[in-house]
Amino acid sequence: MTARVIIQKYGGTSVGTPARIRKVAARIAETVREGERVVVVVSAMGQTTDQLIALAHRVTASPPARELDMLVANGETISAPLLAMCLAALGVPAISLTGLQAGVRTSGHHSKARIRAVETDRLRAELEAGRVCVVAGFQGVTEDLEITTLGRGGSDTTAVALAAALNASVCEIYTDVDAIYSADPRVVKRARRIEHISYEEMLEMAAVGARVLHPRAVEIGQLYRIPIHVRSSFKKRPGTMIVAELPMEERSRVRGVAHETDIAKVTIVGVPDRPGVAATIFEPLGEAAISVDVIVQSVSETRETDITFTIAESDLKQAVPLVRRAAETVGAKDVKASGGLAKLSIVGTGMLGTPGVAGRMFRTLAEGGINIEGISTSEIRITCLVSNAQAEAGVRALHTAFELDSLITRGKR
Amino acid sequence: MTARVIIQKYGGTSVGTPARIRKVAARIAETVREGERVVVVVSAMGQTTDQLIALAHRVTASPPARELDMLVANGETISAPLLAMCLAALGVPAISLTGLQAGVRTSGHHSKARIRAVETDRLRAELEAGRVCVVAGFQGVTEDLEITTLGRGGSDTTAVALAAALNASVCEIYTDVDAIYSADPRVVKRARRIEHISYEEMLEMAAVGARVLHPRAVEIGQLYRIPIHVRSSFKKRPGTMIVAELPMEERSRVRGVAHETDIAKVTIVGVPDRPGVAATIFEPLGEAAISVDVIVQSVSETRETDITFTIAESDLKQAVPLVRRAAETVGAKDVKASGGLAKLSIVGTGMLGTPGVAGRMFRTLAEGGINIEGISTSEIRITCLVSNAQAEAGVRALHTAFELDSLITRGKR
Repeated sequence: MTARVIIQKYGGTSVGTPARIRKVAARIAETVREGERVVVVVSAMGQTTDQLIALAHRVTASPPARELDMLVANGETISAPLLAMCLAALGVPAISLTGLQAGVRTSGHHSKARIRAVETDRLRAELEAGRVCVVAGFQGVTEDLEITTLGRGGSDTTAVALAAALNASVCEIYTDVDAIYSADPRVVKRARRIEHISYEEMLEMAAVGARVLHPRAVEIGQLYRIPIHVRSSFKKRPGTMIVAELPMEERSRVRGVAHETDIAKVTIVGVPDRPGVAATIFEPLGEAAISVDVIVQSVSETRETDITFTIAESDLKQAVPLVRRAAETVGAKDVKASGGLAKLSIVGTGMLGTPGVAGRMFRTLAEGGINIEGISTSEIRITCLVSNAQAEAGVRALHTAFELDSLITRGKR
Repeated sequence: MTARVIIQKYGGTSVGTPARIRKVAARIAETVREGERVVVVVSAMGQTTDQLIALAHRVTASPPARELDMLVANGETISAPLLAMCLAALGVPAISLTGLQAGVRTSGHHSKARIRAVETDRLRAELEAGRVCVVAGFQGVTEDLEITTLGRGGSDTTAVALAAALNASVCEIYTDVDAIYSADPRVVKRARRIEHISYEEMLEMAAVGARVLHPRAVEIGQLYRIPIHVRSSFKKRPGTMIVAELPMEERSRVRGVAHETDIAKVTIVGVPDRPGVAATIFEPLGEAAISVDVIVQSVSETRETDITFTIAESDLKQAVPLVRRAAETVGAKDVKASGGLAKLSIVGTGMLGTPGVAGRMFRTLAEGGINIEGISTSEIRITCLVSNAQAEAGVRALHTAFELDSLITRGKR
């Protein structure tokens, strides 16, 4: 196959009604008329997945994961043929494919399977025959032809994986926001549209609150160097390109300010400093599927340390007894827990080797009277814990301090 | 595999709601506790198939058959895992299987595929492991893994085909009627429950109005000698066994009276008697998917004949212009069409070699003042065309004349 391929992924909102499916089909038809070979990945229509799960819970309180996967996979195998028949009606040859038919091979972990490989024979043959392939996202099959789903961000992952397997020129993610912004535009009126962002920056942004694209999809894009274009299903203008190399002028120190509210902080006080203690504390949380973030262990010169970590506030009630039990096991002195917090993060590859960025962040927050209750950093990210109530003011102050404010105040998005 | 297998098929009404799915699961659990190995075939829940087709028509007026098959196949792949998870909740190990996973291989005729073979490896392995298999009915895949549906009576056909492939001891068809009756019990109060009926008789009954079981399912049962048990999803008592050899006492001459209303009759007058004429007339009807029944060609000593046939009255409007055009092509004199008719049929292997059955039928109708507008026969069936208005009186008269009346008048079914 010589001509390159474009992948377009449309989320549940974009295909939420028959009328929207017709709009999406018109958009695909346009791309085809421009001479592109197109593979489309679709999510389930609107609330279909939730409705199927609700149906399961009407027959039993605890459906087996394998059967739940069999059930929810129908969401995408309903939307895919609807879109394909709509394309056919517009005179665009198209064919819908299940995950199996599209060659998406996965691990056997039901409800959270990983894509192992994409066998592209069928896809290539259909593209060669001049057809648009409409692939049911979020699903694949194991070697034994067992149907699995990919968990959160599943359809994004399908799209980028297909892009990698077909060596696509770009993977377009159509969504209900029109770009990645330098901060949440609902909070910062002068948030800037980001034209280009690096995979690393996008991963950090996603990890700290920018929910546009799931990190695992970004990771595959990074690994196979597939440009990912995040853009609006409803508007024409380009959105944000996620790429390996940023254009020179966009390599500013700080690219964006992300925030996430409703965070809780748990501190285990007086933890005996010996091997295996951290495992004893965090394993029960992992087993309860509670996602732990920002772990800080205080450096101590005694034989005791304090361990602090954050979790979603909604997990706090379930987490505390687990942590108390673990603390008792390891012989710690106390467990303190508090909610009502938010994470404020600045992200940017440009801050690598740029001294003073952290200092400026802390000073900005201090000048705004915002107390910092914890700090965590990566090479290209600094995160501060602050109170929920002060989060938005903090985002705005940081956005201004790092010279991210757009020259124009945006109106309606 | 030594122990034999039972197939149980549950139709759309039987699995129409979560509550009904739970009832069906309880019934299956009971069969499993009796020591049976069970393969279940399910239809789509209630109106799901119609809803999916309606959804297709909201995106395009003429969905391609291939995509429509992809879409409607979801009906059964939704009900199957729901039933399997419900069984699991009752402590019965169970696994749902798509047509593909159950090894149902079909021809590529979308929306009317035929089952070519059932590859039973997976089914046998699951049964061997002690699991109930819940198979999505109505669907299969081609060699190229294209999803096809089987058309009318599809899930019944899946069930009997699986029974044949697994050499099942019986194929139980659970439905909303509790047995095959000697006549429609809504019309004949003294209709008799038929305990046993031969495949041939059932085929004739199905062809002339007894809509309980699709003829193609009966044909497979006949070919592989699989006993088919038609019974109620909601009641315990046994229904009707469809078998090869009737018990001696049940080999009466006439077993049942079937009727079908809203029939139209078309007569082509003065058709030149030469080869190819019938093909010219009936091919366009076949292409328009109009089902033609009871064809009678009058024997003539001239070089012209009259051809009469029946169709469903609902097809009449579409059929007449097609027939007129064909009549013109072959140089026939006229086309006459009339609706408002019904088919009255008596069926029974016992009438083979029993003289006087036809005569008694005609005399009975004549004594009831019922005019016969056409006659057609097979070896074990005689059908008369009468007016719709006289159909029910005719059924009752024939039921009495052939000594089918039950000794007790039945109340509520």
